[in-house]
Amino acid sequence: MAMFDLSLDKLREYRPDVAAPADLVDFWRRSIEKARTDELAASFTEVDNKLAVIDTYDVTYAGFGGAPIKGWLHVPAGATGPLPTVVQYHGYSGGRGFPHATNLWAQAGYAHFVMDTRGQGYSAGGPSNTADDSAYAGLNHTPGFMTAGISDPETYYYRRVYIDAVRALEAVRTSPFVDPDKIVVTGGSQGGGISIAAAGLAGLAGINLLGCAPDVPFLCHFQRAVEITDKEPYAEITRYLKGFRDQVEPVYRTLGYFDGVNLGSLATAPALFSVALMDQTCPPSTVYAAYNSYGTSSGVEVGKDMKVYSHNNHEGGQTYQQDAQLDWFASVFGTTS
Amino acid sequence: MAMFDLSLDKLREYRPDVAAPADLVDFWRRSIEKARTDELAASFTEVDNKLAVIDTYDVTYAGFGGAPIKGWLHVPAGATGPLPTVVQYHGYSGGRGFPHATNLWAQAGYAHFVMDTRGQGYSAGGPSNTADDSAYAGLNHTPGFMTAGISDPETYYYRRVYIDAVRALEAVRTSPFVDPDKIVVTGGSQGGGISIAAAGLAGLAGINLLGCAPDVPFLCHFQRAVEITDKEPYAEITRYLKGFRDQVEPVYRTLGYFDGVNLGSLATAPALFSVALMDQTCPPSTVYAAYNSYGTSSGVEVGKDMKVYSHNNHEGGQTYQQDAQLDWFASVFGTTS
Amino acid sequence: MAMFDLSLDKLREYRPDVAAPADLVDFWRRSIEKARTDELAASFTEVDNKLAVIDTYDVTYAGFGGAPIKGWLHVPAGATGPLPTVVQYHGYSGGRGFPHATNLWAQAGYAHFVMDTRGQGYSAGGPSNTADDSAYAGLNHTPGFMTAGISDPETYYYRRVYIDAVRALEAVRTSPFVDPDKIVVTGGSQGGGISIAAAGLAGLAGINLLGCAPDVPFLCHFQRAVEITDKEPYAEITRYLKGFRDQVEPVYRTLGYFDGVNLGSLATAPALFSVALMDQTCPPSTVYAAYNSYGTSSGVEVGKDMKVYSHNNHEGGQTYQQDAQLDWFASVFGTTS
Amino acid sequence: MAMFDLSLDKLREYRPDVAAPADLVDFWRRSIEKARTDELAASFTEVDNKLAVIDTYDVTYAGFGGAPIKGWLHVPAGATGPLPTVVQYHGYSGGRGFPHATNLWAQAGYAHFVMDTRGQGYSAGGPSNTADDSAYAGLNHTPGFMTAGISDPETYYYRRVYIDAVRALEAVRTSPFVDPDKIVVTGGSQGGGISIAAAGLAGLAGINLLGCAPDVPFLCHFQRAVEITDKEPYAEITRYLKGFRDQVEPVYRTLGYFDGVNLGSLATAPALFSVALMDQTCPPSTVYAAYNSYGTSSGVEVGKDMKVYSHNNHEGGQTYQQDAQLDWFASVFGTTS
Amino acid sequence: MAMFDLSLDKLREYRPDVAAPADLVDFWRRSIEKARTDELAASFTEVDNKLAVIDTYDVTYAGFGGAPIKGWLHVPAGATGPLPTVVQYHGYSGGRGFPHATNLWAQAGYAHFVMDTRGQGYSAGGPSNTADDSAYAGLNHTPGFMTAGISDPETYYYRRVYIDAVRALEAVRTSPFVDPDKIVVTGGSQGGGISIAAAGLAGLAGINLLGCAPDVPFLCHFQRAVEITDKEPYAEITRYLKGFRDQVEPVYRTLGYFDGVNLGSLATAPALFSVALMDQTCPPSTVYAAYNSYGTSSGVEVGKDMKVYSHNNHEGGQTYQQDAQLDWFASVFGTTS
Amino acid sequence: MAMFDLSLDKLREYRPDVAAPADLVDFWRRSIEKARTDELAASFTEVDNKLAVIDTYDVTYAGFGGAPIKGWLHVPAGATGPLPTVVQYHGYSGGRGFPHATNLWAQAGYAHFVMDTRGQGYSAGGPSNTADDSAYAGLNHTPGFMTAGISDPETYYYRRVYIDAVRALEAVRTSPFVDPDKIVVTGGSQGGGISIAAAGLAGLAGINLLGCAPDVPFLCHFQRAVEITDKEPYAEITRYLKGFRDQVEPVYRTLGYFDGVNLGSLATAPALFSVALMDQTCPPSTVYAAYNSYGTSSGVEVGKDMKVYSHNNHEGGQTYQQDAQLDWFASVFGTTS
Repeated sequence: MAMFDLSLDKLREYRPDVAAPADLVDFWRRSIEKARTDELAASFTEVDNKLAVIDTYDVTYAGFGGAPIKGWLHVPAGATGPLPTVVQYHGYSGGRGFPHATNLWAQAGYAHFVMDTRGQGYSAGGPSNTADDSAYAGLNHTPGFMTAGISDPETYYYRRVYIDAVRALEAVRTSPFVDPDKIVVTGGSQGGGISIAAAGLAGLAGINLLGCAPDVPFLCHFQRAVEITDKEPYAEITRYLKGFRDQVEPVYRTLGYFDGVNLGSLATAPALFSVALMDQTCPPSTVYAAYNSYGTSSGVEVGKDMKVYSHNNHEGGQTYQQDAQLDWFASVFGTTS
Repeated sequence: MAMFDLSLDKLREYRPDVAAPADLVDFWRRSIEKARTDELAASFTEVDNKLAVIDTYDVTYAGFGGAPIKGWLHVPAGATGPLPTVVQYHGYSGGRGFPHATNLWAQAGYAHFVMDTRGQGYSAGGPSNTADDSAYAGLNHTPGFMTAGISDPETYYYRRVYIDAVRALEAVRTSPFVDPDKIVVTGGSQGGGISIAAAGLAGLAGINLLGCAPDVPFLCHFQRAVEITDKEPYAEITRYLKGFRDQVEPVYRTLGYFDGVNLGSLATAPALFSVALMDQTCPPSTVYAAYNSYGTSSGVEVGKDMKVYSHNNHEGGQTYQQDAQLDWFASVFGTTS
Repeated sequence: MAMFDLSLDKLREYRPDVAAPADLVDFWRRSIEKARTDELAASFTEVDNKLAVIDTYDVTYAGFGGAPIKGWLHVPAGATGPLPTVVQYHGYSGGRGFPHATNLWAQAGYAHFVMDTRGQGYSAGGPSNTADDSAYAGLNHTPGFMTAGISDPETYYYRRVYIDAVRALEAVRTSPFVDPDKIVVTGGSQGGGISIAAAGLAGLAGINLLGCAPDVPFLCHFQRAVEITDKEPYAEITRYLKGFRDQVEPVYRTLGYFDGVNLGSLATAPALFSVALMDQTCPPSTVYAAYNSYGTSSGVEVGKDMKVYSHNNHEGGQTYQQDAQLDWFASVFGTTS
Repeated sequence: MAMFDLSLDKLREYRPDVAAPADLVDFWRRSIEKARTDELAASFTEVDNKLAVIDTYDVTYAGFGGAPIKGWLHVPAGATGPLPTVVQYHGYSGGRGFPHATNLWAQAGYAHFVMDTRGQGYSAGGPSNTADDSAYAGLNHTPGFMTAGISDPETYYYRRVYIDAVRALEAVRTSPFVDPDKIVVTGGSQGGGISIAAAGLAGLAGINLLGCAPDVPFLCHFQRAVEITDKEPYAEITRYLKGFRDQVEPVYRTLGYFDGVNLGSLATAPALFSVALMDQTCPPSTVYAAYNSYGTSSGVEVGKDMKVYSHNNHEGGQTYQQDAQLDWFASVFGTTS
Repeated sequence: MAMFDLSLDKLREYRPDVAAPADLVDFWRRSIEKARTDELAASFTEVDNKLAVIDTYDVTYAGFGGAPIKGWLHVPAGATGPLPTVVQYHGYSGGRGFPHATNLWAQAGYAHFVMDTRGQGYSAGGPSNTADDSAYAGLNHTPGFMTAGISDPETYYYRRVYIDAVRALEAVRTSPFVDPDKIVVTGGSQGGGISIAAAGLAGLAGINLLGCAPDVPFLCHFQRAVEITDKEPYAEITRYLKGFRDQVEPVYRTLGYFDGVNLGSLATAPALFSVALMDQTCPPSTVYAAYNSYGTSSGVEVGKDMKVYSHNNHEGGQTYQQDAQLDWFASVFGTTS
Repeated sequence: MAMFDLSLDKLREYRPDVAAPADLVDFWRRSIEKARTDELAASFTEVDNKLAVIDTYDVTYAGFGGAPIKGWLHVPAGATGPLPTVVQYHGYSGGRGFPHATNLWAQAGYAHFVMDTRGQGYSAGGPSNTADDSAYAGLNHTPGFMTAGISDPETYYYRRVYIDAVRALEAVRTSPFVDPDKIVVTGGSQGGGISIAAAGLAGLAGINLLGCAPDVPFLCHFQRAVEITDKEPYAEITRYLKGFRDQVEPVYRTLGYFDGVNLGSLATAPALFSVALMDQTCPPSTVYAAYNSYGTSSGVEVGKDMKVYSHNNHEGGQTYQQDAQLDWFASVFGTTS
């Protein structure tokens, strides 16, 4: 479809009205509080990652509902900390995988935490073994995770994932390798959407982030996405409403609590987004909707920048964006040489 | 792909070796016993189906783990029973849907029960509202239901579904509309696979079935299916093993407990199968593997017949097969005019 | 393509100019008169439909040019009539099929007539055996029925089909089971387009209909359809004009006589339409063009309603729409309990 | 699918058993006789083809059932005749098109006749205007021409086409441009299948052909084709039997009268075939079945050769094959310089 | 996608701003001069084309950088000349192929020259053997020819091709068969784009053309094409910029020198364009951009006409357009009978 | 297509006859000698890779014909060497990309060299800037690199690439970071094919390799590949022979010099292969053909092992295979902790 969405000029001004529930902040405050009724219980155990220049720790902590969430903490070999820290969330289907993989930010000299997404992990395989330990996991849904528990914000799958992401921030801050005042969040696609949510919710959890770097983020402006693209995983929602034709209103009501357009508006951390203008999975208008909204309800001036990849589909910037992030994180952390 | 599997001559002789676990019968005996620790609690409440010639009852009973399973019981308007009864299971994604739909066997003068498949129902929508109420529903899996809990037979999704199916037989037998000695099971695709399982397990549950009529059944000879077709939903297994490359052995070990080739061999009820020779979803060799195995471990001579649709894909025989079943059920029930 | 047509707001106001031939009414009056030169010769013969609660009659009558048109008349078992009656036309490729299928409206207590579409029937198979008995059937055309005889309204395939549909109304009115003053027409896709045509032409034939219930109708706003979708069967027209590049004008001239936008405007019966906003086969703008035009040239105020399925492709509302129609027909027939 | 059929070694020995009806020759003798009850009435009218070096005549003659069949006769400008003559039949969907096109054999110095295929012509457009003027054209069929009237050899579409092809030979022999003893037939795909049929039937019509040059011929070994490929137009037959599931036997019985394997076996003219080993439309085994059978029932030794295009799909040899035919026709006609 | 571009009304007024480099004319003047440092060395050798009414000559001449460029010159058999002459360029992948093919304009009585496109020819095969003999051919590029050397106009592939095209005009003018004052250029797709370039550059080379007839031309309004279609070969550019994300500006800068919108504006020869409104390979807006710009910078009034094929994809008008060109060339050459 | 090739049992015994040219070794000896007429001129310049734990050097050396070939040499930060060294070749379309990427083996404590593939690099972008600097780059070919110069082994693209790969070994051995007696080669897909070639040619170049680790290698058993899959890039060969139908023999003759089945048979280094049984790009039979042949002509016993990924397509083992290679390289290098 080449470029199938709004022109870049219009994208830059695209500020759609995405209905934010009146109790958005309350809902999330309650969710964080509820999670905190379970002890965090973060543990860090070194593993043999078979690498010479990176050390890796197997991490477990209590996510939403007390479910054990797994991750890796990578640091430069022999580092003692505290280090500036990058917390990374995965794209849909991904997981922490093998301990020798996905450690770029440790190579750059930082602590690098990667969090499993509960129930997923099947594309990474290996030790991606974090279940969605919840009574709501088996509610009627279409194949995939997008519609699990979607009839109510209380039961929706991403409530658990977003809280896991906030708890990940709490967990890493208990590690001596991590400088608790120097944390950024990042991730691509679903990981980008979770990053935005984490940035929006960090304040409610009393955590100050130094930056948020979502790439071609998913989980933003759901309704627009469903209307403009038929690509997975947004299409899971379409498939659900194709069958449950009478559930359109409650489904979009639920999604209002999880939309990056709404959650990102609460963020205060500076941001570096990326967008791909031929992205059929996360259409550029949904990304710009989140970008243009980002930080606007936070009450403070929030610095933000967008890297535009004009001829890319959902792969986005890849190593180009990593290159930009290497610079930006160094700047944010004050480690620019 | 036109015809892509074995020739009809070879299909008729196709008796592959599908490893049956040594404790197959024990496993299922234990599963039935475990289910029976929850009270069946079958309830029947008449609903307005908006039809003049059929009456419909909303049914709930306790499936595996006590989960409330929903279904409809349709009977000819004004019927009193006991009636010969057809129990129908749904194809993958299906659900009981609206009470005015899927009632052919009541039109034919029988009691007709349709069972929700837990967690599914999204293609039927409407009142298809039976959750997979289980602690295992959120274990790591690929989108869909085929790999949920697949690492162990105890946690596998279809353990719960197959037991729900057996419990459905127990449930309908408590209705005054149902002649408990005149029950047949049927269904297409997944519903066919469940029918075979129900026929195989009925004996373990002390239930005598008069017939089993699986159409283009799914859930048979999993490994062959995965190797010969890339169509959903068998491809969910492929996708799982594509990521979890080291889980091939345990996955196929689990599936051995659920394979229609193994379970059907235990059956004693006469059977009317159907197969489509261009079926890319449930390849004909997987259907014939189940057919040729059907009843062979039961210790009795079991009558069986196969309707072959030579130029059909997974739609199979549709109304042609219904026509054949109308005759066959009448014969089985002794209601042939 | 997700939603690829106009927004719902714009659809509701979409009233395109579809050129109606000056002699539209004359053409159809002449066509009806011509058909009446052949005796209707409607016959009704009971068949064994293998069902207990429905009786079925094999119907034959003389369609356009005297061609024998087949259908089934289903009634509640033992009914005597006269009954409110639903006349149903098939979707493209469909046919009356087996006598045990497609009898929902008889289940609801009405007489239910299903008409074969001449030449088609191949997707239903079985006893779908009504030929397009016409000297024009072999005129140059692309595969399918959409362009057969399209160079002239006199020879176009749908002239014969639309008149068959009107003659079906005449035929059922000769049955003692049918209350001639209580007839509605319905059908999905092509059946919806034929319903609209039948509703528009009924007045010219002196027949009063109580209702018209077209679902995701085909055969409306042809030129828009050809320009906005490449899906079959509208694409048959594209394929014809792709080869016969100099026939654009005469082809659209012919289609003007058959366009649901033009024919529906003549209707006086109340209507219940349905539309699917992701329908790539019958794009929503073509459906709304017909809906917004419906009844507007009839000289009377015509009640009409539209059921919108926002996340559906051409499957439309299915059982949801049946549910709505069960209510609406009961209301139209005055049989609401 | 790259190469998906038998290996070349096996193809060369592939002689499947294609059931030939006992009355095959009688059926065709009767068909030819029936056609001859209509006067041939071949007319030749010069048209302006806008070319300097070729003259073109508009030809009409009575085909099967007396239907007027159109064609062009191209000759070198100013030629007087009698000339060696090439009669060409079209691929499926083709037609004679514009008079300035498809005249290669006239460029080579021969008379070149191209015959319209009744009812088709939509891909060529222009003056491709020969209807399938027959009472059987409207019998139930799937979109396309492959199943029109297929329930009986008497009513099957290709009965009319094959007889048209024989009549074309009779027609051109009445032209002073044509040397009636120096005629070859040729064509690609459907045109190749018709060429084989014409070569097989020519003897029954008392016509002696000098050669038959079918390229990647269609209409050979139907059942194998349907089983091994899902590409159009063979798939029309699959689609028909997918719906009319009970018509498998009569359909293949009818096709036995029209199969190039059976008809070609009657031929006595030397042949130059071509085959493409990656041809998914006309799979190589179906072509070799016809080739290996060609002439084998004729009672004489028939020279034949096969050009093999190893890496081609249905486009076959194109200009390479024309180059080979230029040589072969020159040799057959004795015009080699 | 049916019609996916602007409406015909908007196309007719579509005059986008395609940045023309300031030194466009200089660049091409220099390129022509550079080419002329190699001797033209045009040779004409008769070959046996196996045809009776056409004579064919094997042509070689020095293209850009002195590379030997091959072509055929076809003339009516026995013609002596000078004749009006049609120079034809090929579509992407094409080549001169066999000498018996692609000679329509010689059939019409003209001299007809077909030029090989360097490096291509693989779809025609046979004697399509002209290499892209250049030190720049191996510069980093995506599969295909669209991005070879694209980082600089000096090294871009089409610089060599366009100059080859101008040199072809110079070469044919040295043949006694050719009337040097009666030459038109034509071609479809890439051949259309080259025709426009040749018409634009002819004046710089001191050659007066009588006409330019590009069909569904490629190589026009590159940026729009890349943005609106994902079809090959424009997609080669997309693929290049997908990887080399930082090269967007220099790539479009280079393309500015080669865009038919810019080059065609310099043309003075009358033109007959064609466009297909469903053309996904060369979208109609890119064709109209070139058409509306054609001749507008030439300082003279340039006659031009557009044939619109409303229901065609990239096949465009085919024989219909040939028919129109037969008339138009006759008119341009003054040979209308 | 799921599993579409031979069964694993048959793959293990698959030893096809791939014609090796009589002068295979001579050809390559001459090619190496020819390359050595250009000075190697390897240069190493440190660059800022923005990483803390890895140092990276920009490498240039003279490949075949003296063309400047680029690469990166990564080493653990502060390492002095000599280190065991991994030389990696890229998959088709790949390139060295950014200096912060593709450095796993340096993370593991080794020197890690990545070589640009001349002319390619477009999927990696960034500093992937090595041209195919050769007079043969512009010979007629289909889009891509597979057929460039394929008519003769002297001019074939992969002659240059394979020699570049051997020269890379020579180049890294001049670096003080590299232990010249501890080098392994590796790569996936095309990189696997080049690895096999490098292992086969290393001996001719007087270089002793410690190991060869090709993953899902490409460039093996070309003819089988072309016949069994239609996926790119093998399909480039099909496309070439589809047009140049008369070049089958010379093309496969050329490929005989480059086939991994032939070149790998010369290798003496132990090998760790991987294969994916659902690999449609590099079908398993082509991989096993190379594996089973590997080292068999070398005159010595060569240790080799195969990792089988049963449910994977061309992605193969990915991090699982990296994990296996981390162990295997440590064992080969004697660095196992």
